[in-house]
Amino acid sequence: MKVSIIMGSISDKEIGKKTVDILEKFNIEYEVKVISAHRTPEKAVEFIKYAEENDVEVIIAIAGKAAHLAGVLAGLSILPVIGIPAKSSTMDGLDSLLSTVQMPKGVPVATVAINGGENAALLAIQMLSLKYPKLKESLKEYKLELKKQVEEMNEALNF
Amino acid sequence: MKVSIIMGSISDKEIGKKTVDILEKFNIEYEVKVISAHRTPEKAVEFIKYAEENDVEVIIAIAGKAAHLAGVLAGLSILPVIGIPAKSSTMDGLDSLLSTVQMPKGVPVATVAINGGENAALLAIQMLSLKYPKLKESLKEYKLELKKQVEEMNEALNF
Amino acid sequence: MKVSIIMGSISDKEIGKKTVDILEKFNIEYEVKVISAHRTPEKAVEFIKYAEENDVEVIIAIAGKAAHLAGVLAGLSILPVIGIPAKSSTMDGLDSLLSTVQMPKGVPVATVAINGGENAALLAIQMLSLKYPKLKESLKEYKLELKKQVEEMNEALNF
Amino acid sequence: MKVSIIMGSISDKEIGKKTVDILEKFNIEYEVKVISAHRTPEKAVEFIKYAEENDVEVIIAIAGKAAHLAGVLAGLSILPVIGIPAKSSTMDGLDSLLSTVQMPKGVPVATVAINGGENAALLAIQMLSLKYPKLKESLKEYKLELKKQVEEMNEALNF
Amino acid sequence: MKVSIIMGSISDKEIGKKTVDILEKFNIEYEVKVISAHRTPEKAVEFIKYAEENDVEVIIAIAGKAAHLAGVLAGLSILPVIGIPAKSSTMDGLDSLLSTVQMPKGVPVATVAINGGENAALLAIQMLSLKYPKLKESLKEYKLELKKQVEEMNEALNF
Amino acid sequence: MKVSIIMGSISDKEIGKKTVDILEKFNIEYEVKVISAHRTPEKAVEFIKYAEENDVEVIIAIAGKAAHLAGVLAGLSILPVIGIPAKSSTMDGLDSLLSTVQMPKGVPVATVAINGGENAALLAIQMLSLKYPKLKESLKEYKLELKKQVEEMNEALNF
Amino acid sequence: MKVSIIMGSISDKEIGKKTVDILEKFNIEYEVKVISAHRTPEKAVEFIKYAEENDVEVIIAIAGKAAHLAGVLAGLSILPVIGIPAKSSTMDGLDSLLSTVQMPKGVPVATVAINGGENAALLAIQMLSLKYPKLKESLKEYKLELKKQVEEMNEALNF
Amino acid sequence: MKVSIIMGSISDKEIGKKTVDILEKFNIEYEVKVISAHRTPEKAVEFIKYAEENDVEVIIAIAGKAAHLAGVLAGLSILPVIGIPAKSSTMDGLDSLLSTVQMPKGVPVATVAINGGENAALLAIQMLSLKYPKLKESLKEYKLELKKQVEEMNEALNF
Repeated sequence: MKVSIIMGSISDKEIGKKTVDILEKFNIEYEVKVISAHRTPEKAVEFIKYAEENDVEVIIAIAGKAAHLAGVLAGLSILPVIGIPAKSSTMDGLDSLLSTVQMPKGVPVATVAINGGENAALLAIQMLSLKYPKLKESLKEYKLELKKQVEEMNEALNF
Repeated sequence: MKVSIIMGSISDKEIGKKTVDILEKFNIEYEVKVISAHRTPEKAVEFIKYAEENDVEVIIAIAGKAAHLAGVLAGLSILPVIGIPAKSSTMDGLDSLLSTVQMPKGVPVATVAINGGENAALLAIQMLSLKYPKLKESLKEYKLELKKQVEEMNEALNF
Repeated sequence: MKVSIIMGSISDKEIGKKTVDILEKFNIEYEVKVISAHRTPEKAVEFIKYAEENDVEVIIAIAGKAAHLAGVLAGLSILPVIGIPAKSSTMDGLDSLLSTVQMPKGVPVATVAINGGENAALLAIQMLSLKYPKLKESLKEYKLELKKQVEEMNEALNF
Repeated sequence: MKVSIIMGSISDKEIGKKTVDILEKFNIEYEVKVISAHRTPEKAVEFIKYAEENDVEVIIAIAGKAAHLAGVLAGLSILPVIGIPAKSSTMDGLDSLLSTVQMPKGVPVATVAINGGENAALLAIQMLSLKYPKLKESLKEYKLELKKQVEEMNEALNF
Repeated sequence: MKVSIIMGSISDKEIGKKTVDILEKFNIEYEVKVISAHRTPEKAVEFIKYAEENDVEVIIAIAGKAAHLAGVLAGLSILPVIGIPAKSSTMDGLDSLLSTVQMPKGVPVATVAINGGENAALLAIQMLSLKYPKLKESLKEYKLELKKQVEEMNEALNF
Repeated sequence: MKVSIIMGSISDKEIGKKTVDILEKFNIEYEVKVISAHRTPEKAVEFIKYAEENDVEVIIAIAGKAAHLAGVLAGLSILPVIGIPAKSSTMDGLDSLLSTVQMPKGVPVATVAINGGENAALLAIQMLSLKYPKLKESLKEYKLELKKQVEEMNEALNF
Repeated sequence: MKVSIIMGSISDKEIGKKTVDILEKFNIEYEVKVISAHRTPEKAVEFIKYAEENDVEVIIAIAGKAAHLAGVLAGLSILPVIGIPAKSSTMDGLDSLLSTVQMPKGVPVATVAINGGENAALLAIQMLSLKYPKLKESLKEYKLELKKQVEEMNEALNF
Repeated sequence: MKVSIIMGSISDKEIGKKTVDILEKFNIEYEVKVISAHRTPEKAVEFIKYAEENDVEVIIAIAGKAAHLAGVLAGLSILPVIGIPAKSSTMDGLDSLLSTVQMPKGVPVATVAINGGENAALLAIQMLSLKYPKLKESLKEYKLELKKQVEEMNEALNF
């Protein structure tokens, strides 16, 4: 079971780190690469070949501005592609969001929130849990953790 | 293998039909229900119990305006939830899109394009193909079909 | 007479504080809780039961991003629910505003301005004043105070 | 118990009709007036005097474009004011929504969805139910009706 | 010849200062007041009476968020009202702009750019120059100054 | 006393007609021309010369999309320039509005609402009334007419 | 001298026709193809090879929604790529515009207005005129034509 | 071969610097001027005459807010004009983008990303490469450099 995280630029690293942290928490094998849809398009083609031959199961793509990376990978592959729109220096991430989510009929990208590194990882794990039922247990535990965090917030409240 | 399509209102039926058509084309077992996050919240809770007991594997939620349906189902479940933002009479679907995709950390919704009924189905099938490898063949054929459609467009061109 | 302030996360505390300050100024009994529509959905159900049994009269919900909290509480209850959209790190609060205000027919949320903690409290007090006429006097005094503040601004002006 | 519905123009009548229908269903006494914040500002002042002397309990204001009506009434009164942003010929209602909801500190407007005539009425009834507990029963029945409608949608589904 | 600058709050002072500086440069008599459309509505009525009796010739209104000030003054008066939308802490001034400019038929507000303090003053002077032709000379000189500034920028360029 | 209405294209004629109707109602001398900031820039220069020699007192410019017409005329002249952003086939007039109103320091455009033909005329008349006091009477009558219209709306109401 | 017009789908044909009409008017050799960045990515790669071997000099790409076509072609080639954002059924073309224009550093797309078929052709001709000076004459004539059209509009005016 | 960079104000210098750096890297002759479409409109006319007499081949215009500079230059000239929308203090550059890109039929502006100084230079070089084939080699080398940068990012990755 393997997740490939593809970033459009090293400037997306902070978001990628949030994705990696969740994947490690769930003991998911992963790898991180920088591939630019625009600057290294042939690397995108090569990566998809590699992915199919190496049993990559879910792809997570992080990109900003006119964020084509997730869409390009989705066009080349039949693997599920999760897109994380990255907030860039202008437009507050709206450009990235629309470029990632508004895909034409036939080529879906599973889009999460702007800068939503953690949720991309969790979505990948939910997908993998269809095949690896053990992950369902971990996901249930994680949901309990979330609940506990909220409870702790409640206890920490003082007004 | 089973996909549940949940619509927030019967007014989302046209989008749901596009989802159903793709699922049928791929011979995926599915069911369609109307559950309103706001008008029948307890049905949402019941549905998730039912879904877990009945081996539902992917949930697709369609809703418009302050579109909470996908998010509410994702909060209740560990199954992957795909959200389709429905364009309503105002705001051109921007409200639905943001309400669906901008989920907080811990609870992802795999969001597709506004009114993107077909892509939600295809994304569900990509997820299922992790577990049911035969679907990979169907997805590859579908990709070829898409290509053929584009070629036919090319032949039909006359300027 | 009792107002419950529900925050989606402890990160909304600063807004909640502004609400609390106004309620205290008017001597309104209140309580503050953290309940996440997505991370602790069953707590939302429990809270509404509690609220109905404990004579909570108005609910104020604070949440950001895909801000479902106010809508979920409104779906579960017949109490008036006031929603405060919280500005989050992206989209300048537009996502929170649309997710809170664009509720479907049948389930209203009384939405105030983005980060509008004080106004949520004042709106709650206006609602309560229907039943507790003494509050009308306090509201009139508050209006006079607002006027006095503007007059003081006038005196402080020097160009 | 009395609700005053104030429309900025007769062109808002269709939205007002949806408000009236709900109020009649709940047997709430109401009146409808056209008052323009910009064309008849002194009528707004007169109306608020009238409202306070005639035991109006909730005000609902409907206006479009630079929609100041609800805010002006809220500035003049201590009664709860519900604002319905009306979609006009341009900007898809975004101008009306922001002009209605983004009120400054001290003067809240309880804003509902763009063109949300029914929800404004329901919110008014929820407010009134604080004082008139019988309305709580009607609100509960209405919630059941909403549920039944969703169930009927479910039965009507055929794919 | 007299211009009244009305600010919705003392927090708009920085913008007002830019307006004042231009008016002083052109030797235009002016006054600055804080009047809140929402917190001191009766002051707005009083001000318009005062303005008409005291030969105020142009009104400049500065306000943010649901910026009703310019529109309210325009509704009360037949004097030309210039509106400056003030950028507030959220929405980047879009709320203020739409609330100021999108006025209904019959009640114009001459809107300038967000935070456009200088341009409001210049527009007021252009209006006054219809009656006071000497101002035309000053406006022509100002235009020459602007040109000179651009030329100085050109000389200062070094790449 | 003379107002020049400049349209960027004959497609803006409907808006221009609304402006003309108000000017005629107030017996204001006017002329209408089509000048394109982009297709006939030298005509813009010629027009401003003509305007200054022929005692044009106010310029009204109507344009859509990247609406530079009002700004270009304002750059060339010291006359007050009123800009009407025209809604075009996309972007719902937001492009026209921002292109017209967001003018840089030094060159104001008095912007009215999208498609606001009547208000541009009224604003021109308010400006002219500084010099021609008789117009003040007409403006007061017009304000009374507006009030009467609202009263007639009130009488026409039947719910 | 040769321009290739690439459409993302046959649904962009109407825009393409406007481009073709201008190119024919200027006697520019052209060809039209349908290539989908997402459905036929390898065709994009093939096309760029073909373009370089066949002396294509300018590429015009038309696409809607998450419009990656122009960006993908620009990533693969050193030819100038002109992007036309196509308005689709939702978002009024804003998604297409941002997806086309907000390209990252290193890979420009020369973006024209939403649905701007004619301007894309004219921009291509301006580029070609650097190499083929005769086109400069045609462009000058076209500018005169535009002027004449505006003059004819002026003559056609009747108010 | 010569590129003229025109900035609307010296405040756009930082963006201009990015353009200049790329042009120098490719050994393109260039010049930088400040011309304001609004403050020095006659300079724009003079510049275009100068440009045509001095063999300027491509014009790059940088401007913010109601960014008319590129459009005005394009209206005056048949040279290709590249527009860089500059992000100003409000609206996050959306005003500049729409004012630059949404040009009417007949007068194209080749628009690049908000603040896209480098891409404007690269686009100019692509245009020039039609006439000066040697530039094609440099552009190919630049593309390789971009690839190498991405590879270096890959090597620098450590998670």
